[in-house]
Amino acid sequence: MSYLGVGSSPGNVAVYHGGKMKLLDRRLRLTELLLRCSATVLALLALILIVTDTQVKQIFTIEKRAKYTDMKALVFLVVANGIAAAYSLLQSVRCVVGSMKGSVLFNKPLAWAIFSGDQAMAYMSVAAIAASAESGLIGIRGEEELQWMKLCNMFGKFCNRAAGGTASALLASVAMVFVSSISAFSLFRLYGSTQRQPNVAVMK
Amino acid sequence: MSYLGVGSSPGNVAVYHGGKMKLLDRRLRLTELLLRCSATVLALLALILIVTDTQVKQIFTIEKRAKYTDMKALVFLVVANGIAAAYSLLQSVRCVVGSMKGSVLFNKPLAWAIFSGDQAMAYMSVAAIAASAESGLIGIRGEEELQWMKLCNMFGKFCNRAAGGTASALLASVAMVFVSSISAFSLFRLYGSTQRQPNVAVMK
Repeated sequence: MSYLGVGSSPGNVAVYHGGKMKLLDRRLRLTELLLRCSATVLALLALILIVTDTQVKQIFTIEKRAKYTDMKALVFLVVANGIAAAYSLLQSVRCVVGSMKGSVLFNKPLAWAIFSGDQAMAYMSVAAIAASAESGLIGIRGEEELQWMKLCNMFGKFCNRAAGGTASALLASVAMVFVSSISAFSLFRLYGSTQRQPNVAVMK
Repeated sequence: MSYLGVGSSPGNVAVYHGGKMKLLDRRLRLTELLLRCSATVLALLALILIVTDTQVKQIFTIEKRAKYTDMKALVFLVVANGIAAAYSLLQSVRCVVGSMKGSVLFNKPLAWAIFSGDQAMAYMSVAAIAASAESGLIGIRGEEELQWMKLCNMFGKFCNRAAGGTASALLASVAMVFVSSISAFSLFRLYGSTQRQPNVAVMK
């Protein structure tokens, strides 16, 4: 018979030592770490691509410079990606420290904090990308009825780089959406065990 | 001692009959139903407010009509809210049927389907609102550097109604975000119990 031990301290701390659980936990920790590291790198790449994005165009005698601050949605995207990169980096460090300790020590308040943070980051990233994509689409195709002219025919290099930045931010947000599902799993499975704790006898 | 029964069929069906569990399940079902009904009504309200939004303005000899199809972000918001309202209505019916049956009969494939659907709806709604809010902000304040003029000084009534529709959609998406957390709870707590099932003896 396989060995399974379930322990719980009064501070809502649950420690699992089962074979299946250990394997699942190891895989989850590794996936979470990879996703968080990817999110950090991709969000940082998006930030750098957009912040350094600039193009100068000579229109008759007037010199016109396009920069990301001209488009408020890109400023929002930069800020959102800065916050997401810093948050993902901190969480990656937490994952590495957790992996080095080896055991899965999980308390509910921490799990709730991580779940809430991950949810906030995922939704913020999706909102920033949607706003940026909307502005980008107006820049590419224009809104004829509203007389908002397309600009990407004039500032092609600027638009391409901004699109690259938005694509990188999109990949980062996909990673964050998956991470938020993992943290939801890590939090809510605790309720599957603790609900039954007082009535459960563990066989060794 | 309180009574707790945990049963699981080979088809990954788990049925809970505990006192605490029953109370939690009843509260969750009620909250979920209220949130899903609110999301349906608010998404539908947003859709109606935006689709019926129109304003005619006489500019010298030209008659200019503002309508939601002039702004692609509003079209996206209408489509997204239409899908969200239909989905939330179907899920509300499922909740009512589940409540009438009384017992919490939950299988993992169904829980995964509901979780995935809820997540997709929540992110889609947030994206639609962000895109619409971005277009709205350009309409209210303009993007001076890009020569995208503000329009809400001319079409104030149209803008106010569109803002009302977006606010209603925002409330619907908040409800959907909470609902997606509830469905995550309903899904992932199943993993807290089934992981331990083969090694757990239940005391009655």
